[in-house]
Amino acid sequence: MSHLADQAAQNLEAVRNQKPLIHNITNYVVMNTTANALLSMGASPVMAHAVNEVEEMVSFAGALVLNIGTLSDSWVTAMIAAGIRASERNIPVVLDPVGAGATDLRTRTANKIVAEVDIAVIRGNASEILALRHADSQTKGVDAIHTVDDAATTAKLLADELGITLALTGPTDLVTDGQRVIRIENGHPLMACVTGTGCMATAVAGAFLAVDSDPVSAAATALAFFGLAGEHAAEQAQAPGSFMVALLDSLYTITPEQLRLQAKISQET
Amino acid sequence: MSHLADQAAQNLEAVRNQKPLIHNITNYVVMNTTANALLSMGASPVMAHAVNEVEEMVSFAGALVLNIGTLSDSWVTAMIAAGIRASERNIPVVLDPVGAGATDLRTRTANKIVAEVDIAVIRGNASEILALRHADSQTKGVDAIHTVDDAATTAKLLADELGITLALTGPTDLVTDGQRVIRIENGHPLMACVTGTGCMATAVAGAFLAVDSDPVSAAATALAFFGLAGEHAAEQAQAPGSFMVALLDSLYTITPEQLRLQAKISQET
Amino acid sequence: MSHLADQAAQNLEAVRNQKPLIHNITNYVVMNTTANALLSMGASPVMAHAVNEVEEMVSFAGALVLNIGTLSDSWVTAMIAAGIRASERNIPVVLDPVGAGATDLRTRTANKIVAEVDIAVIRGNASEILALRHADSQTKGVDAIHTVDDAATTAKLLADELGITLALTGPTDLVTDGQRVIRIENGHPLMACVTGTGCMATAVAGAFLAVDSDPVSAAATALAFFGLAGEHAAEQAQAPGSFMVALLDSLYTITPEQLRLQAKISQET
Repeated sequence: MSHLADQAAQNLEAVRNQKPLIHNITNYVVMNTTANALLSMGASPVMAHAVNEVEEMVSFAGALVLNIGTLSDSWVTAMIAAGIRASERNIPVVLDPVGAGATDLRTRTANKIVAEVDIAVIRGNASEILALRHADSQTKGVDAIHTVDDAATTAKLLADELGITLALTGPTDLVTDGQRVIRIENGHPLMACVTGTGCMATAVAGAFLAVDSDPVSAAATALAFFGLAGEHAAEQAQAPGSFMVALLDSLYTITPEQLRLQAKISQET
Repeated sequence: MSHLADQAAQNLEAVRNQKPLIHNITNYVVMNTTANALLSMGASPVMAHAVNEVEEMVSFAGALVLNIGTLSDSWVTAMIAAGIRASERNIPVVLDPVGAGATDLRTRTANKIVAEVDIAVIRGNASEILALRHADSQTKGVDAIHTVDDAATTAKLLADELGITLALTGPTDLVTDGQRVIRIENGHPLMACVTGTGCMATAVAGAFLAVDSDPVSAAATALAFFGLAGEHAAEQAQAPGSFMVALLDSLYTITPEQLRLQAKISQET
Repeated sequence: MSHLADQAAQNLEAVRNQKPLIHNITNYVVMNTTANALLSMGASPVMAHAVNEVEEMVSFAGALVLNIGTLSDSWVTAMIAAGIRASERNIPVVLDPVGAGATDLRTRTANKIVAEVDIAVIRGNASEILALRHADSQTKGVDAIHTVDDAATTAKLLADELGITLALTGPTDLVTDGQRVIRIENGHPLMACVTGTGCMATAVAGAFLAVDSDPVSAAATALAFFGLAGEHAAEQAQAPGSFMVALLDSLYTITPEQLRLQAKISQET
């Protein structure tokens, strides 16, 4: 049993005991399911986006989740104000750069948040995260990534360049701070058939960041937990509607001991 | 069988027969589930928030539901415009002061709505509702409430001061207009594990207000009905995802006769 | 077996193979369920509404879905900008005029979109679609429609006047371009007990428009597919919460061959 599997169990138990408040400034599509994912796992979600309250609200939070899935200008202003306040209070911030790389607005917005806010973890798919490369980055683009090893090498280099822990999700998830590289093999293909599972993974990472001060282990164990919930759900349901219901159920029913035994987390040596 | 249990059955039957239009200006997180709760129980929900249409829309409605869960300035303007028009037309308004007491913006907004709109019922938890005390209130704060009796005494005094029927939800729900105090014992702990159940309870109260001109009996019977739906759901489902599905099902399947027999409503003497 | 049943099967297969990107500018209530409906059936949904990205986003799309269910001014501006760009690129646009006829703002907005954007299909109920009549229309109002034949006659005339394919949904669905009139008999009454099923039908039509260049057959086969999903769902579930779950499941599980055999589409001679 790895150290990280133990840490996963410990993080889940800590969330259920402490019920940390997780402040989400997220997109319209996933607000409901994100809140439900956090509640199911034992955390306390709050959604608030008004620029005239986000600084006050985030001050009570154990973590801040920023997600640009349905962005518009006033929301970005609020995200940055909340993020800066969070940084001042040492409250960890996790960013989900939804659609970075797809439109210029999203790429610019994600980069602006990264530049102005002290981000603990960025969770996205490979194309979203590689859209955050600086102009002078030594990394290649997403088209040059053909294997998990390619992705790991690229992510490690980019994490080092950005100075931020990166969590790339896909068939194999990768978490790296530029030094350590963790692979997580939990998950199920049906997760890609439900909207917002990526966003939910980001929020779960927020909850684990509220109880685990190491961004790498917080993100890696969160992805293992969320992926395991997908595996348990797939035992109950074989189509997207019922799978989503079972996924929320699994976030509630998985025990720390099950997570310790079933987490598939490995650290590269 | 109490008078209020009979009234509960009568209100549910009236909603199913009349299908009142319930105009909701509510938060992003719960829009879908609120609309579905209203549809499942037999009412006709409409969501509209543009300041240039809310006055026209509310004119057709049987009740107006205002919910500040994800507020921003333009929404507050629309809530007040719709609320004032509703008052002019004698259309009952129910307010859900989500997060009042948590941030200054929410407390101020809830108080502003209460000051400018003729509210029939406020539905919230104890801390949200006690945030609505005037500076010269004789009531104590939420920290002084340790028992249901404390809450009942405080709520009764505050309802009298505000001149508004208050519906405090918790393990025991309380409804009071400052004279009568009703206790409702229906409900299930899993309701706290799903986002928006409080908001749904407020919307259900809106539907009952559309068919019952007494705010106290409308709110009390709505909370009994919604709590009973939670009880029925918990017989079908033991985790939050499937519980939510079963809750919507129960709002559809519970008969007036079941509600009459299973409502746990008692009036203090 | 009709030509249209064959086309329905072919369209479903094409969506699953091509996974077209469907850009939705839609209402808050249904964003999640619309995205999930599109994902379940095999398409790739994206939601984006910022006026400074919609033109770029729609350029990648196979179809654009405009839905005015919770409109406000900035969203309408974005809808029109996206719609005009889509027209320039020959990307089909489907409009859902939610609530047209109910408030002046909605009627005006729907008409403004129709005037400024090249719309392939309008999907709504009879009262919404008849609200789009010009002042000099030869058609009667919704109050004059008592039978499916009345609706067919009116819709055919209005489609001809507008030069747009109309898809009227109800117990019997009708699709007409002013020449051909198609009737679709698939569907189930429980669909009216879940919020957003009309909006989901519109989005499904968007997905079929992305793979079928004939608006009439795209819309008619989409309504047959969506209605059949409702029929399959009703075999699994008898109340709205579980019905919605089963509806999403059915969009995923129905095979092209089942659709070919079970589609109830007939063209008037």
